Amino acid sequence: MNTPRDTVMSYWKSAEDRDWNTFASLLSPTVTYDLPQTRERMHGRENYLRFNREYPGDWHLAVEEVLAVAGRVVSRVRFTVNGETQTAVTFFDVDAEGLITAILDFWPEPYEPPPGRAELVERY
Amino acid sequence: MNTPRDTVMSYWKSAEDRDWNTFASLLSPTVTYDLPQTRERMHGRENYLRFNREYPGDWHLAVEEVLAVAGRVVSRVRFTVNGETQTAVTFFDVDAEGLITAILDFWPEPYEPPPGRAELVERY
Repeated sequence: MNTPRDTVMSYWKSAEDRDWNTFASLLSPTVTYDLPQTRERMHGRENYLRFNREYPGDWHLAVEEVLAVAGRVVSRVRFTVNGETQTAVTFFDVDAEGLITAILDFWPEPYEPPPGRAELVERY
Repeated sequence: MNTPRDTVMSYWKSAEDRDWNTFASLLSPTVTYDLPQTRERMHGRENYLRFNREYPGDWHLAVEEVLAVAGRVVSRVRFTVNGETQTAVTFFDVDAEGLITAILDFWPEPYEPPPGRAELVERY
């Protein structure tokens, strides 16, 4: 029996491999996908599979961190598209059958720091 | 002995309460604070305390979720400033003495969804 952490590791590996059969096998038929930044919500495995298969760009990913507490899992993943990198922080619910039932996804984008704190920080 | 999860709960409560003595007591003297979106890094308890004490706006926070695996903790916190809300997702390292030694902070901002997927999603 895979742990919820294993499920999320397989999820990311199958996405990177474009192994959509494995990817789909990890999803509950009623999975929900929630993007709070755009206030978008998607329902169901077929929609979510299509969203991922059709996502544009030659994206690649590297898992940086996965934390799991019972059926709740969070991952921090670095995506690279056309030489640009971005982090995704994603929360998963994994049920007792090892299927992902809910995904809550954050894509924090680069921004310029506000003025007034330069003396406290270094830039990298 | 407080758990790392307790430490992070106290961290957020003391921030909301502006109880800077308690807040400082949870930080290692050598704490680092890392903001990948702006590529800013801060070193040391005094700098980080000042950064928080002086942070502008009448901000308030509500902890939505905390996951802890040994000394690694992630929180999802909803901030409200002047009626606007934003989520912070924050990763913490907590040492054996219960002090926070490293903070990795993400502030995902709202954005408009790209075209081409409206038929797959609902907006909220």
